[in-house]
Amino acid sequence: MSAWVLPDHIADVLPSEARHIEELRRSLLDTARAHGYELVMPPLLEHIESLLTGTGESLDLHTFKLVDQLSGRTLGLRADSTPQVARIDAHLLNRQGVARLCYCGPVVHTRMERPASSREPLQFGAEIYGHAGLEADLEALELAQACLRGAGLRELQVDLADVRIIDAVLDPLKLPAARVALLHAALTAKDVAELRLLSKALPAAVQRDLSALATLFGDAAVLAEARRVLTPSPALHAALDQLQWLAEHVQGMAVSFDLSDLRGYAYYTGVRFAVFARDARGPAADIARGGRYDEVGAVFGRKRPAVGFSLDLKELVACVAPRPLVAAIRAPWGMDAGLRQAVALLRAQGHTVVCALPGHEHEVDEFLCDRELVPDTGRPDGWTVRPL
Amino acid sequence: MSAWVLPDHIADVLPSEARHIEELRRSLLDTARAHGYELVMPPLLEHIESLLTGTGESLDLHTFKLVDQLSGRTLGLRADSTPQVARIDAHLLNRQGVARLCYCGPVVHTRMERPASSREPLQFGAEIYGHAGLEADLEALELAQACLRGAGLRELQVDLADVRIIDAVLDPLKLPAARVALLHAALTAKDVAELRLLSKALPAAVQRDLSALATLFGDAAVLAEARRVLTPSPALHAALDQLQWLAEHVQGMAVSFDLSDLRGYAYYTGVRFAVFARDARGPAADIARGGRYDEVGAVFGRKRPAVGFSLDLKELVACVAPRPLVAAIRAPWGMDAGLRQAVALLRAQGHTVVCALPGHEHEVDEFLCDRELVPDTGRPDGWTVRPL
Repeated sequence: MSAWVLPDHIADVLPSEARHIEELRRSLLDTARAHGYELVMPPLLEHIESLLTGTGESLDLHTFKLVDQLSGRTLGLRADSTPQVARIDAHLLNRQGVARLCYCGPVVHTRMERPASSREPLQFGAEIYGHAGLEADLEALELAQACLRGAGLRELQVDLADVRIIDAVLDPLKLPAARVALLHAALTAKDVAELRLLSKALPAAVQRDLSALATLFGDAAVLAEARRVLTPSPALHAALDQLQWLAEHVQGMAVSFDLSDLRGYAYYTGVRFAVFARDARGPAADIARGGRYDEVGAVFGRKRPAVGFSLDLKELVACVAPRPLVAAIRAPWGMDAGLRQAVALLRAQGHTVVCALPGHEHEVDEFLCDRELVPDTGRPDGWTVRPL
Repeated sequence: MSAWVLPDHIADVLPSEARHIEELRRSLLDTARAHGYELVMPPLLEHIESLLTGTGESLDLHTFKLVDQLSGRTLGLRADSTPQVARIDAHLLNRQGVARLCYCGPVVHTRMERPASSREPLQFGAEIYGHAGLEADLEALELAQACLRGAGLRELQVDLADVRIIDAVLDPLKLPAARVALLHAALTAKDVAELRLLSKALPAAVQRDLSALATLFGDAAVLAEARRVLTPSPALHAALDQLQWLAEHVQGMAVSFDLSDLRGYAYYTGVRFAVFARDARGPAADIARGGRYDEVGAVFGRKRPAVGFSLDLKELVACVAPRPLVAAIRAPWGMDAGLRQAVALLRAQGHTVVCALPGHEHEVDEFLCDRELVPDTGRPDGWTVRPL
């Protein structure tokens, strides 16, 4: 096999796309900063136990393991940044009050999360620690919206779910975790036949609830329907009330519900959301995903309320139209003091100036050069820019 | 061991430093762009043979290996981006003319490159492919200078070397590679005793040249001294002529030479440079390193002239004084339309607005808030900003 063939689902990002990703990256970080989120940069490698404890089997299977030659211990290549940010909140910052943190960097997956997705997403995310109220959930959702609008997406829709709804149905039964996982998978896939098979031995009310859950997706009517058909319990009603509060307070996005959506890693403990853009280029998919994961800091000895979202910049860039390339200026190569000064001045003004190296004057440049720097005896430094 | 202890020489980057790194990152990428360099983003993981072939043992030992579950093949976690960028130049862009490329992303090392260095540098670099002339070496050096000046460093010094000088001395002997490597190591360490021991069996002229090389460092007088004391050869004189040309054309930096400096990976084939900042905070060390590595694309079937440099942003940030934090505005939390509009407007204007979540109004914010948004019935939207 040739030395230049990359592993499956791993790709280079070439100049035009890389430029666009960099523009989006700055826009996302600036939006988070304007909302009071501080940037942190957790490392790519950590001891496997701090990356994975309490995060569930799915993250474990997605995480590359390697051996630290300095210590002989097993390290993980991060597949998700949230447990790392929770560790930073718990141990390094150790604040009593609210902490708002954001991050942007690569994560690596042993296998694809979706059939066409990259195994090396560029993950951007933002998280609020220390506030249990729904205001934090709303803020996370609104920040996700502001980020996607900043990227140029306009017709946004948020799909809301809450893991406490299925918990309200299944928790009283105290089923083994493996059994619960199978039920979750069948629910997420809305596989009613499988669901029936799996729930055959369960109480009739639970069977009814599970079948109903698989159909509870759509607009605001879903919440009323859920109250009508699901077996009532305080936990169920609290979760539905919260979803309703959120749906009423979200502005600027269409709201839908999918009460059987249980995707994502095992760490969600409350409201979950997925934001779609109906004006996205390419296949419609949720671009930003988030929710509440109050337990995630527990392994680090500091269980704090936490809510946040993340997105993959490599997915995002495929959804939005690229901004036009700013045209550049061609200049000759030379050690003439006036030329060097003119080039430096143009660059300091923000222009891209491409100097043609000797012998390469007639190459077509990859930059779109629409002007050139030419000698002009009428100017003090002897050079002027003219259109090409 | 606690779950939050990181591996040795791996660290989180906390908010104040992360903000500074992000500012430097943008400045570096903008400087490279203004010089006509296009951004590329190679992946963190590649097949080990494309990461390592032709790059030498040192890079191999610094590279973490892992197994691709999809293919069963061995992958490497990149320890350096240059072989990747060479692959991109050779295969993906495949341009006939000059290609100017830059990159910025993490690399990971199994062991430290220097005693205090991170095993996870944030590598920024820029490279010119397709021009064999010294003008490209000069451009790389000048871009490195512009990048460091943009970061706030002023008193720069460049140390020049050329691997062809030692090649001119040793190549005619056709020594085994292991022997040459030992001689290189002794020379780089300027270990004259070891050098004498290793060269005992070599011809007297070579012994003299090796001993002389270990003393040939310092200012421009070094080149004249080298011409005087080293055994003359066309290869030696060509290398010395090129160093002299470069030294005469570099502007804005003090120039020194170290003809026995052979550090860096095995891929350098010509001029090498290291840029120091005498006004750097912390221990004086070379901040940017670069040179010519014409052979690096050979393994990808396209040997092109190549010259470039790289630096570690985590090293750079420790060398420069942080820019002051821009102060933020505190705002109350609320769904009042006027408040929300006022907050959105301030953020759109580039301000950081931190909304105090309910119950957290009296927390000391980590952002330096010097103003607050307060109700003002005299204003159309009912809110105004006042100093704190």
